[in-house]
Amino acid sequence: MSEKIETRNASQAGEGRDLEERAPESCTPEDCSSCQAAADGTCPLQHEKAQDERVRPDKAKSAIEKLPQSQFNDIRHVVAVMSGKGGVGKSSVTALLATAFAREGYKVGVLDADITGPSIPRMFGIKKRADSFEFGLLPVQSETLRIPVMSINLLLPHEDDPVIWRGPIIANVVKQFWTDVVWGDLDFLFVDLPPGTGDAPLTVMQSLPLDGIVIVSSPQDLAVMVVKKAIKMARILNTHLLGLVENMSYVICPHCGNKHEVFGPSKGQAVSEATDIPLLATLPLDPKLSELCDKGRIEDYNPDAVASVVDFIVKILDHMDKLKAKDHESKVQ
Amino acid sequence: MSEKIETRNASQAGEGRDLEERAPESCTPEDCSSCQAAADGTCPLQHEKAQDERVRPDKAKSAIEKLPQSQFNDIRHVVAVMSGKGGVGKSSVTALLATAFAREGYKVGVLDADITGPSIPRMFGIKKRADSFEFGLLPVQSETLRIPVMSINLLLPHEDDPVIWRGPIIANVVKQFWTDVVWGDLDFLFVDLPPGTGDAPLTVMQSLPLDGIVIVSSPQDLAVMVVKKAIKMARILNTHLLGLVENMSYVICPHCGNKHEVFGPSKGQAVSEATDIPLLATLPLDPKLSELCDKGRIEDYNPDAVASVVDFIVKILDHMDKLKAKDHESKVQ
Repeated sequence: MSEKIETRNASQAGEGRDLEERAPESCTPEDCSSCQAAADGTCPLQHEKAQDERVRPDKAKSAIEKLPQSQFNDIRHVVAVMSGKGGVGKSSVTALLATAFAREGYKVGVLDADITGPSIPRMFGIKKRADSFEFGLLPVQSETLRIPVMSINLLLPHEDDPVIWRGPIIANVVKQFWTDVVWGDLDFLFVDLPPGTGDAPLTVMQSLPLDGIVIVSSPQDLAVMVVKKAIKMARILNTHLLGLVENMSYVICPHCGNKHEVFGPSKGQAVSEATDIPLLATLPLDPKLSELCDKGRIEDYNPDAVASVVDFIVKILDHMDKLKAKDHESKVQ
Repeated sequence: MSEKIETRNASQAGEGRDLEERAPESCTPEDCSSCQAAADGTCPLQHEKAQDERVRPDKAKSAIEKLPQSQFNDIRHVVAVMSGKGGVGKSSVTALLATAFAREGYKVGVLDADITGPSIPRMFGIKKRADSFEFGLLPVQSETLRIPVMSINLLLPHEDDPVIWRGPIIANVVKQFWTDVVWGDLDFLFVDLPPGTGDAPLTVMQSLPLDGIVIVSSPQDLAVMVVKKAIKMARILNTHLLGLVENMSYVICPHCGNKHEVFGPSKGQAVSEATDIPLLATLPLDPKLSELCDKGRIEDYNPDAVASVVDFIVKILDHMDKLKAKDHESKVQ
C-alpha cells in the first residue's frame, strides 16, 4: 500500500482511491456503481466496465436492475426514510409517517432495513415472530392500525440477539424483505434505513423502486454534516428527495414550560435552503414519544406536524405519477 | 428462496439461516466466523471449515489472525467505543475519553472507524487533510492536546462527501487505518466504532488487538435493547467489556434548573447489573457539549465523570497486563 501512497499527497482529491484500490480482492462487480476507482476507471478489476460507466452513465444506471415485486404484492409507492447520522429519531419518524398515512385511510407497510440495529418492532409493540408459508415470509401486523411490519428482529429467537453479518449478507436480507415478503396490496411501503451510506441504503436505492426519500436530521452541525452525505448519496444514485424532517429540534421543560434547544438552534430551514429540499416538519424532542416508543405504543402518538406531511407527500407523488404517465404516453406515440 | 422457507416456520431459532443461506454467492471465507450457517455447519460453501470451527472453537479463533502493528508504531493499548444504536453520543464519549487520558499525561490517538458517518474530526475542529509519505498515512493532530486522529473525512476533498461503499471496502479501510497509519508511540489508541454490529465493528474485533470495549448507551429501552446486541456480539467474539457509560441521562433546564429525564428514567445501573458490566459514568445531555462539538472544541470540555473513568480503565488494563505476563511466564517455564 505504501508504494501507492508514496507518490501522492493524501490531501489530494484522488486520495480516496488509495483506500478503494485495496478492495478488489473482496468486492464484487456490483460494487462498481459505488466505487470511485470504478467511476474514474482506475480499478484494476473492473477497468473496462468502469470506463464504460464513466463515459456512459445512462448505461451504468441500466446495469443495476430494480428487483421485481413478488406475484403476491401490489405496492404502489415505496418511500425510504434516511438520516446518515444515527439517533436522530429516523425510526420513530418512519413509524409516525406510516401511522399518519394509515390514519388517512392508506394501506401502508413498514420494511425495517436497519438489520444490525432494528427498532421498528419494539416501537409498534410487536412481540410475535414472523411466520412463513410456501410462498414467502408473512409480515406481522401492528396492534392498533394493523400495519404490516417486517424486521430482522421478527426472525430472531430473541430481540437482543445480534446479527454479526458482513455487508453482502445484510444486503441480501434487505433484498429478501422486498422480494420474499408477502406485503399484499399497499399504497405505501415505508423503508427504515440504517444510519450511514453503506450496504443497506445502497442496496435499497439500487434495487428497490423508490419513489423518494425523506431525510431526517437534528439541529447539531454534526448531524447536518452527516445528513449532507446522505443527501449527496441520494443525488448520486438519482433518488428523489421528498423532503426534510428536523427532529429533536427543542424540548419543552415539564417544570417551567420553557422551550429549550438542547442540540442548539434549529437548522432545518437553513439546511432546506442549502440543499434545496423542502422542510416537511420540525419535531420536538418529546419524552412522551420516547415513553410510547419504549412501551410499543407509537401508534397512540399523533403530532399535527406529521399529519400535515401526508398531504404534501401524496401531492408530490401524484404529480410524479402524472409526469411518468405523460412520459410513457409520449414514448408510445 | 421460497422453497427453503416453505418447510420451516420463521419463528424457529433456525430461521436466521434462511436469510444467511442466501449469502454464499457473495460472502468470503472470512465471513464464516460471523455466520450462523457456518457456525452450525449448514453453510453449503464453508461446511467443512464450519464443522471444524463448531467442534473446535479454539481452532476457529486462531483462524482469525490479528493484524500486526506497523514498524513505525508502538501502541500499548487499544480500546474501542461501541454503542450498537446510533446517536447516543458514542463519538463524543470517545473524544472525551481520549482528552481525559491525554490530560493525565498519556499519549493517546483516535481511530475513527465510523467510515460512513465520521464525526471525530469535526469534534476536534480538525480541518486539515491528512498527509502521506512513503511509509504510510500521517494522522492529523488536534489543536489543544495534540491528539493524533485518523478519519475517512481527513482523506476526502469535502467533509460532507459520502463514501458509498459496501462492507468489504469499508472493512479494508478500517484495517488500513491500523496497518498503514503512522501512529508512532501511543499508550492508548481509542477506536470509535459505527453503530450496529456490521462490518466495521466485526473487523475491529477480529483484526485489531483490542484490550477492551467501552459500551455507550442512553436511557431509552430501545437503545438498551440494541446495546445488548452489541454486548452479545463482543462476548461472542471474546472481546473484553471494560464498562458501560450511560449518556444523555438527563437535561438540566437552563431556565428553572430542574433535572429533566428526556429519554426516560436512567437505566444505567439496571443494564450494568443485567449484563454484568461495570457502570463507568452517567453523563447528562449537555447543550454546552453539543455546542463545543459543533465548534470543534470538545477538548475544552472536561466533566469529572469522565476524568474518573481514566483511573478505572488504567487499573483494569494494568491488571490484565499482569495476568497476561503471568500466563506467558507459566508457558515459558
